[in-house]
Amino acid sequence: MPYGSRRRSAHIVMADTGWPGCVKSLKGVILDLCGVLYDSGEGDGVAIPGSIEAVKRLKESDLQLRFCTNETQATRKNFVAKLQRLGFDISVSEVFPPAPAAIAVLKERGLRPHLLVHDGLLPEFDAEDKTNPNCVIVGDAAENFSYQNLNEAFRVLIGLERPVLFSLGQGRYYKETDGLKLDVGVYMKALEYACDLKAEVIGKPSPTFFQSVLNDMGLKPNEALMIGDDLVNDVGGAQYCGMKGVQVRTGKYR
Amino acid sequence: MPYGSRRRSAHIVMADTGWPGCVKSLKGVILDLCGVLYDSGEGDGVAIPGSIEAVKRLKESDLQLRFCTNETQATRKNFVAKLQRLGFDISVSEVFPPAPAAIAVLKERGLRPHLLVHDGLLPEFDAEDKTNPNCVIVGDAAENFSYQNLNEAFRVLIGLERPVLFSLGQGRYYKETDGLKLDVGVYMKALEYACDLKAEVIGKPSPTFFQSVLNDMGLKPNEALMIGDDLVNDVGGAQYCGMKGVQVRTGKYR
Repeated sequence: MPYGSRRRSAHIVMADTGWPGCVKSLKGVILDLCGVLYDSGEGDGVAIPGSIEAVKRLKESDLQLRFCTNETQATRKNFVAKLQRLGFDISVSEVFPPAPAAIAVLKERGLRPHLLVHDGLLPEFDAEDKTNPNCVIVGDAAENFSYQNLNEAFRVLIGLERPVLFSLGQGRYYKETDGLKLDVGVYMKALEYACDLKAEVIGKPSPTFFQSVLNDMGLKPNEALMIGDDLVNDVGGAQYCGMKGVQVRTGKYR
Repeated sequence: MPYGSRRRSAHIVMADTGWPGCVKSLKGVILDLCGVLYDSGEGDGVAIPGSIEAVKRLKESDLQLRFCTNETQATRKNFVAKLQRLGFDISVSEVFPPAPAAIAVLKERGLRPHLLVHDGLLPEFDAEDKTNPNCVIVGDAAENFSYQNLNEAFRVLIGLERPVLFSLGQGRYYKETDGLKLDVGVYMKALEYACDLKAEVIGKPSPTFFQSVLNDMGLKPNEALMIGDDLVNDVGGAQYCGMKGVQVRTGKYR
């Protein structure tokens, strides 16, 4: 790939950042998805104008590219299929959502989850033992956040000698095509307060989560740039890990 | 009423407190209701053994008696009717729930509420102007705590220039006959996090709320004793105001 092509792509990304000096060391870009490349909503949602072309140009550059998302309303496979239907050239191995990371943690610690998640995410946990649960996993369950379901998760936690709550992200809200919607972090806080405990966040802005993406690219933090629409979970989380972070003015930007 | 009768009743109340010295100054008792006099649940719930008699004996004493509750699933009138059906000699004017206090605050500050409360509480707010709301009131809405309803309350708050959230209590959970249930405080925390604000609590353990009960009795804090099953909202709240507080071992006591 010619040098000029790399320069053009990097220029697109860095245009508004005011850090011309860091272009030289930049070897990888991590993109958030919802609010950056597309807006979720009815059906598949809609691609944000220019985003399909931006991904294409980044892929033509010699920068490595990964996609880091707190999406938990679908399995990774179904989520990537949606992105492809929207017109993005993105493959499953390039996308990092919280659920596969959570499954790795369950295996590592021998935990059996009670799930408070979206129906679309359930198949991701098909192979996990969910009998006699000794932890709770809360994701962006949306309509599944009924009083009854939250109460069930609460009763599991309050009944455990050492209650463990995993939250797949800690976002406050996100934008869908018909308006703002409450995100998983709100229900994480609810359960934290009910049970007087602190949840373990899997997903952005967890440093472990960002590090797994850097490991996959084989890059040091200062060689990667995170681009997202959430000042805390994308930009702040990345900066906490030593990456550069840029906030776009689409999605939940207000 | 003979002095002996007063001593007997006071003795019942103070038996487990280890404060024999304060009996002399004691002029009033404030009782919590749910978990102290009855357990809520199917239908009217059930009176806790001995509680109907305890209220009777306190009423026969020369101690003043009031009932201070964070009950927000019914209007005060309907709530007291339920207590009477359970066999308690309690009248509407003796019972202090959060909703009437909230209505006083709305009037004082010229606020129009969006209500996220139990259907049973709605008639209490019949006379309030709810058009174009400029605050949100959250009560123990139970099954009304759907994702859609919480999202609606969130959208009202996030759309206000100066968002105001009132929470009718801040309890974590309570005990019904079929188990523990999430209380209003959990959803207060959810909305606080979503909107990055601090709710104003109306009800226990708000000092203003306890003070209104003391005012009604014409007593100083050190002349009154609060008896409840919640260590934070009953005992702690009362102690913060200068009253004595006693925790019973019924209700949510664990």
